Amino acid sequence: MDEFMQAAIDEARQGLAEGGVPIGSVLVHDGRIIGRGHNQRQQRGSVVLHGEMDALENAGRRPASVYRESVLYTTLSPCPMCSGAIVLYGIPRVVIGENRTFQGAEAYLRAQGVAVEVVDSNACRDLMTTFIGRHPEVWNEDIGV
Amino acid sequence: MDEFMQAAIDEARQGLAEGGVPIGSVLVHDGRIIGRGHNQRQQRGSVVLHGEMDALENAGRRPASVYRESVLYTTLSPCPMCSGAIVLYGIPRVVIGENRTFQGAEAYLRAQGVAVEVVDSNACRDLMTTFIGRHPEVWNEDIGV
Repeated sequence: MDEFMQAAIDEARQGLAEGGVPIGSVLVHDGRIIGRGHNQRQQRGSVVLHGEMDALENAGRRPASVYRESVLYTTLSPCPMCSGAIVLYGIPRVVIGENRTFQGAEAYLRAQGVAVEVVDSNACRDLMTTFIGRHPEVWNEDIGV
Repeated sequence: MDEFMQAAIDEARQGLAEGGVPIGSVLVHDGRIIGRGHNQRQQRGSVVLHGEMDALENAGRRPASVYRESVLYTTLSPCPMCSGAIVLYGIPRVVIGENRTFQGAEAYLRAQGVAVEVVDSNACRDLMTTFIGRHPEVWNEDIGV
């Protein structure tokens, strides 16, 4: 497993251990993680801090030039909000753990010129199927269903 | 001026008074404001709390049924991130103060079935032109330029 996807999975597992939605992300610039995070719906009552958003927030304020040379690793296919953030900041490449439990806005990302790669990781899928089985109502809330 | 757009402008003005990017929003459900907020880049060093996102965050966790009966009022045309959040949560209608200083993802919103109304408010435009004139670098950072 790629070390950055492994770091995103570690974030997702930390989220699960906290009782949260197990989705994690890391933002990588110049071969180094500059922001990492995981979904904060249960932990902080946040409706905007999906894993990807938490990683961006934890990376702090950055000039456009940094985002444009960065890669976002995330354990799950990014929803429309997180995909919009990727487009806003001009992040050129996204590596996705899996998209079988949830298909996000990958077509939109590609149409906006973002390179999208899906790893199809069993570890990522197992985290989601476990959580969705236990807390379907939280998961539905997280994706506006 | 519609009372809800006025509330969004009040939020934007509060942001300006705090030294922040003057964009404000309110989320309205059943004729009542359930969340209000303004851009928090300068105040909290946030890269995800645009005005619309701050209003959603301050509205707290809500079932999908509430979002689907809500209207988002925002002083400026929503960027791709905020438009993605609107699509994620299925908010059916957005009222925009102005879109001359910045054209967000209105076409994307409309393509997703969201009703988009632009008020073309001088007050909203004046707030942005004042801020962009004084702090162009902050504004560029806020939209990933």
